[in-house]
Amino acid sequence: MSQSLLQRQDHEGVATLTLSRPDAYNSLSLELMQALHAELDIIAEDVEVRCVVVRGAGKGFCAGHDLKQMLGEGEEDYYRCTFETCSKLMQRIVSLPVPVIAQVHGVATAAGCQLVASADLAVAADTARFATPGVNIGLFCSTPMVALSRAVQPKHAMELLLTGELINAQRAFDIGLINQQVAEEELDQTVNALASKIASKSRKALQIGKQAFYRQREMPLADAYALCSEVMVGNMLTDDAQEGIDAFINKRKPQWKHR
Amino acid sequence: MSQSLLQRQDHEGVATLTLSRPDAYNSLSLELMQALHAELDIIAEDVEVRCVVVRGAGKGFCAGHDLKQMLGEGEEDYYRCTFETCSKLMQRIVSLPVPVIAQVHGVATAAGCQLVASADLAVAADTARFATPGVNIGLFCSTPMVALSRAVQPKHAMELLLTGELINAQRAFDIGLINQQVAEEELDQTVNALASKIASKSRKALQIGKQAFYRQREMPLADAYALCSEVMVGNMLTDDAQEGIDAFINKRKPQWKHR
Amino acid sequence: MSQSLLQRQDHEGVATLTLSRPDAYNSLSLELMQALHAELDIIAEDVEVRCVVVRGAGKGFCAGHDLKQMLGEGEEDYYRCTFETCSKLMQRIVSLPVPVIAQVHGVATAAGCQLVASADLAVAADTARFATPGVNIGLFCSTPMVALSRAVQPKHAMELLLTGELINAQRAFDIGLINQQVAEEELDQTVNALASKIASKSRKALQIGKQAFYRQREMPLADAYALCSEVMVGNMLTDDAQEGIDAFINKRKPQWKHR
Repeated sequence: MSQSLLQRQDHEGVATLTLSRPDAYNSLSLELMQALHAELDIIAEDVEVRCVVVRGAGKGFCAGHDLKQMLGEGEEDYYRCTFETCSKLMQRIVSLPVPVIAQVHGVATAAGCQLVASADLAVAADTARFATPGVNIGLFCSTPMVALSRAVQPKHAMELLLTGELINAQRAFDIGLINQQVAEEELDQTVNALASKIASKSRKALQIGKQAFYRQREMPLADAYALCSEVMVGNMLTDDAQEGIDAFINKRKPQWKHR
Repeated sequence: MSQSLLQRQDHEGVATLTLSRPDAYNSLSLELMQALHAELDIIAEDVEVRCVVVRGAGKGFCAGHDLKQMLGEGEEDYYRCTFETCSKLMQRIVSLPVPVIAQVHGVATAAGCQLVASADLAVAADTARFATPGVNIGLFCSTPMVALSRAVQPKHAMELLLTGELINAQRAFDIGLINQQVAEEELDQTVNALASKIASKSRKALQIGKQAFYRQREMPLADAYALCSEVMVGNMLTDDAQEGIDAFINKRKPQWKHR
Repeated sequence: MSQSLLQRQDHEGVATLTLSRPDAYNSLSLELMQALHAELDIIAEDVEVRCVVVRGAGKGFCAGHDLKQMLGEGEEDYYRCTFETCSKLMQRIVSLPVPVIAQVHGVATAAGCQLVASADLAVAADTARFATPGVNIGLFCSTPMVALSRAVQPKHAMELLLTGELINAQRAFDIGLINQQVAEEELDQTVNALASKIASKSRKALQIGKQAFYRQREMPLADAYALCSEVMVGNMLTDDAQEGIDAFINKRKPQWKHR
């Protein structure tokens, strides 16, 4: 069943996950969130994967939660389950050992915008649109803002959160929510090239770096340096670093262990 | 007396506060800060208000503290009273249950620039100018930098703080200190439209969201998600969210309770 | 010996430090890091200095650590010494009582990019290039990212860290890693003008402000305001502030004590 909600394709170290509820703009039903979380858990243990791409099937990337499902259930416990499942999913992206790229076309709204903000990198079609429109229906996008307010400057986050309006890809690029915007017909190829580049690196180095990035970010400067100095020492002692430095000095291509 | 220092006008959920010491570039005398703080306390309890605009009368927005008043008093206790009053005023803006928009024309310097940085959103005339010039008189803008360094990136904050020089509205926009810059003759109308848009939202949702925004921002990621998940659950159970979602699904305009 | 690795020139309150290992792109050998740290310690006590410029001799600014030296030593203790020495050097820049400007031409990579990120301000030639390329050799730039992730937004930091690719000066300006980019032939003159402007300020005010900037940044908002209110009171009571305000009101040039 989760097969139909979420497709996975692997190619040379890149796992591409496609949200597949196109008739509902890939809105994050409980089942879709669970399927995505489960697949990320599998990827976390898969030493062949060095980069993950998350994209949406059909007309858009992801339109947030499934409001009809939520209102239909109408119970406090159900709401809690939805938001906790979503929050854990977003933190699973952050804690994943390998980088995650959001590939955005069409709309990315509410929890869909949060997915973009939570990814390590994001590339969008120039026709993409982003919003946190919860305020328009009396339900402020409070969980999306956890990711959004860590991705962009506060006035930019507040503009999205308080007006609920869509911004275009150019504005999303200007405020640092995405890394790149390209013509829609070049989106696949641009993301593939970026993902392949990352997948050509040492998995061990990517893992060490991504994990340290998010840990040190929440620390005072002195603690962050104490942590990262030790991280660098540990990294230097890995086979891949010794191989990489030797390859660099001898001007040859490194052979990673990827384990 | 505070009537003359500060004017308030209300229109369809928007309270516009005008700093009115035009001969002194609306510099923040102790009396003006107290008047503004007192009015914000009243607004915090006023269920009719969903958005606040702060603007200045005369040639500019606000030129910071009143140096003549400060030097005239010349006492450590007086200085302390001034800076503590100012710091509490800025935090009152942050803790206000409804959003605050700074409407900037002319100069916004020192504590005036801090007012802009402390507001949730800011819109400026393209002729506006911003600076934290304390360093030029041997008095580093240390309290303004609390707000400034949370609004913009560190190199941009340091540029303002260390040089003491004015930047124009374009640069303020580029570094994220303001959300928008418009021709001077369109400033009123642009701010009115933005404030009206926000005032059309549910007061309850704005309050829940703004309060959570500033609380979660100071937390580690996991704590922020734990807080905001519960905030979303509580928000879902409000009348306004149930009304808003039902209105959205049934394609009608929501009727907020505003209480 | 450190004389040859590092040159210092003083001119009207500005100390210019030139990294001088041009044949090795000024890469940070242990000896060079120690020489730079020692000179910064001397400058910290030198009441004549109000601003420091760090630049590189030869074709580029700084290409990070000296990989040949590191691999040659090949011992865990040696790696630890290198990264701890580097981390302490970067924190010495932050804790220096006077502002530091990075003057960048050519490449600034790995720990060289970290130097730029750690400086209070940075000005680059439009031909300058920046990267954190450790990931390319299996050694993620984990210590550089401590500074980088505090200087720029997370997606921009991750782009540099995960791809390992060079960005140009325009992009470095756009993401806030540098304050200004100018034609290569105008770099000296632009940095001199900026450094001279800062050196014309009160040393006491610069010291109070820079120290408070980095302390308050790591605090919750209320604590930051409590600290900085007291900092402002202390600053007001200094001779330089009293002189500066009096000079401002009487429209004359202030005479700082610089002590």
